[in-house]
Amino acid sequence: MISTHGYRGRALDLITKYGIKVGDRIVVRNERSSFVGILMPRSELDDDAHIVLKLDDGYNLGVSIESLQIEKVPQEEVPPQPPKAPTSRPGLPRVSIISTGGTIASRVDYRTGAVSPALSAEDLYQSVPELGELAEIRTEILFSLLSENIVPENWTAMARSIERHIKEGAHGVVVTHGTDTMGYTAAALSFALRNLPVPVILVGSQRSSDRPSSDAYLNLKGAVLAAAKAPFAEVGVLMHSTSSDGELVIHRGTRVRKMHTSRRDAFVSINSSPLARVADGKIEMFGKYRERGGDLELKADFDEDVVLIKSFPGIPTDIFDPIIHRGFHGIVLEGTGLGHVPERIFPAIKRAIQSGIAVVMTSQCIYGRVNMNVYSTGRELLSLGVIPGGDMLPETALVKLMWVLAQTRDLEEVRRLFLTNVAGELSERSEYAEVWHP
Amino acid sequence: MISTHGYRGRALDLITKYGIKVGDRIVVRNERSSFVGILMPRSELDDDAHIVLKLDDGYNLGVSIESLQIEKVPQEEVPPQPPKAPTSRPGLPRVSIISTGGTIASRVDYRTGAVSPALSAEDLYQSVPELGELAEIRTEILFSLLSENIVPENWTAMARSIERHIKEGAHGVVVTHGTDTMGYTAAALSFALRNLPVPVILVGSQRSSDRPSSDAYLNLKGAVLAAAKAPFAEVGVLMHSTSSDGELVIHRGTRVRKMHTSRRDAFVSINSSPLARVADGKIEMFGKYRERGGDLELKADFDEDVVLIKSFPGIPTDIFDPIIHRGFHGIVLEGTGLGHVPERIFPAIKRAIQSGIAVVMTSQCIYGRVNMNVYSTGRELLSLGVIPGGDMLPETALVKLMWVLAQTRDLEEVRRLFLTNVAGELSERSEYAEVWHP
Repeated sequence: MISTHGYRGRALDLITKYGIKVGDRIVVRNERSSFVGILMPRSELDDDAHIVLKLDDGYNLGVSIESLQIEKVPQEEVPPQPPKAPTSRPGLPRVSIISTGGTIASRVDYRTGAVSPALSAEDLYQSVPELGELAEIRTEILFSLLSENIVPENWTAMARSIERHIKEGAHGVVVTHGTDTMGYTAAALSFALRNLPVPVILVGSQRSSDRPSSDAYLNLKGAVLAAAKAPFAEVGVLMHSTSSDGELVIHRGTRVRKMHTSRRDAFVSINSSPLARVADGKIEMFGKYRERGGDLELKADFDEDVVLIKSFPGIPTDIFDPIIHRGFHGIVLEGTGLGHVPERIFPAIKRAIQSGIAVVMTSQCIYGRVNMNVYSTGRELLSLGVIPGGDMLPETALVKLMWVLAQTRDLEEVRRLFLTNVAGELSERSEYAEVWHP
Repeated sequence: MISTHGYRGRALDLITKYGIKVGDRIVVRNERSSFVGILMPRSELDDDAHIVLKLDDGYNLGVSIESLQIEKVPQEEVPPQPPKAPTSRPGLPRVSIISTGGTIASRVDYRTGAVSPALSAEDLYQSVPELGELAEIRTEILFSLLSENIVPENWTAMARSIERHIKEGAHGVVVTHGTDTMGYTAAALSFALRNLPVPVILVGSQRSSDRPSSDAYLNLKGAVLAAAKAPFAEVGVLMHSTSSDGELVIHRGTRVRKMHTSRRDAFVSINSSPLARVADGKIEMFGKYRERGGDLELKADFDEDVVLIKSFPGIPTDIFDPIIHRGFHGIVLEGTGLGHVPERIFPAIKRAIQSGIAVVMTSQCIYGRVNMNVYSTGRELLSLGVIPGGDMLPETALVKLMWVLAQTRDLEEVRRLFLTNVAGELSERSEYAEVWHP
């Protein structure tokens, strides 16, 4: 799959026939028209009826392969272009954009022909010229990962990169990220970046930028604006707040969840209001937030020996045995309702805790909070030593337990740290904040 | 815990001191007043400052234990009460109420003193006299289970009990159920009851009925009304549609999910509009539905050797090994986004499928649908033989795979059955229906 850069079926047959590869400058012709441009990789693999060209004016064009003739423009005929210096006004705040991959960064790999996505400052200024009016931008291509492949050690690397950029004077940092696990990464950075002095904005897009309906540009512009000018110094996730263009919202990193597979407004604040709204070039804050300032302190280690287990009717009684035998350090349960699992698995939970594994309870209801004092099931689990996750998201609880276990394996200390609010992830009384509705 | 019927701490000390047990008829006195009634079990275990009495007028009373003196009324002094015949108008539709346990049934066990909850027709008429105007009610106490303890074989027993009641002439069936896993049971009954001729309404309550804010009575009344008079013959879940009293909604059994730990309107239709609304004693239908009529056909077996695994960053690569070794038959993955899991675990998925395990992909986003043709991750998973779950809820997909695997272990036939819409659980294009917002 890698070698065809996303092309398949008839489109792949066509470019193979003409001996064309991604990154080549080509002329395409059909009965009606002809275009010159660079053949771009495809990120959408369900279409073998088009190829995508990057035209000289910077726009991407999907061209139907029907009756299409292709000719390669020899490399020596391409006039060598002087590298475009980033053109930004002097005196603007400095924003670093750290690219980790995902759909939002998928449009720019036409330069190298590599399918791994990338963003360079020049690409950005070219495709979103307004960025130059918002900030002086520095970029770093840290990874080119589909976010489903991101692992906890990538969070550590992101935190270290962010630290470097802040030490070098960034007034704010943008992290471009695939949307699949952006919520997990946002929680991880929220815990890792203690005493954060500037905003750190994670941003993704739900539609790849070679589609007309892409949310990539608007999200990126909003993220740079927020990084440059927002008054808060927290980790936020910026995405569309509605399915239409133009409404952007920033969610607190520990309270955000991807709640729809495809909509542009898929990210939702759970048990909390969002941090801020971005509209008409302005940032409107909601509720309390941490202000800019302070000296960043990195606590960026995560214990990967933690698993998330969702409870369900018929869950096997011996589900924890391999986890105990393998010597895992933590288990986050996604129980039902107020924080319950079947009584049949209590002995397994007991064995896990007795063998030194920290066990945390959250709820698969997602909204609300576990309350293990109401029914006997919850009380018995508490008496076994299960740590209640309050109103923390299961995903945030998983990341937090990984973070806590990297600091201590002492179960009492794990409990104390886990039950301490670190980055807005836990509250005594949850707000009944507005919830996403399509 | 069982033997104290929910009493603990100071309240337990008090009744122990007086030698009183749940079910005893007692006189209680403090400085200001005295009451006669039957000591009821407690379902709320976070309160040791009150005992609960069932007074002769049918109301429950919480009495502070402060300065409380208790005296047992000897059993022989209780005037023998003639069994109250259900008083319902002649000619009403017959509705069966099958009790499985949970909060909704927790109030009536004062008669036996057993902590296991129960509902009898007499109890019902006594506490909700309006039921007699809606239907001629028959009751069956099938289980007294907290719903977190319900297992697939309980679904089979429920389906058989429902079949019995329908064969005996029920115009509709109500199943009272704990809310924790009511969504799973609703899906299971939706698949098990083929060619269903009457409505089957699952109903629960989020607040136990010895609390003034209980939703139990209103939900039960609505459920009996729907069972007696609704035009649809499907499995539905009836609960509050808002946090205030009086608005009830019926969700389709395969499309409903508990989305809040404690709110009365916790149940939400996902990727679908609800089946119906109940207001002012009337049932308003939404969209298409199966009409009453037909001959019930039971397909009530479920293969319990199926597990649900939620993907997360850092998920161990060998997570499937114990499942393969133990000879499980099915795995439902809760992937990220459009239906992805880390590439690192592809070999494990491949091993699972090669050993004859059916592997289904759903999305932890909950809303939306998996689409595994968009990105290379999804396409590669499809090529390994993973079955895409469409817009099915992960919980519904789990239940459906258990149901399909009880019919066949042939992977091609499993795929065919799984991808066939059986009970409204799967659609080609999802509606963007209204979604719950607190």
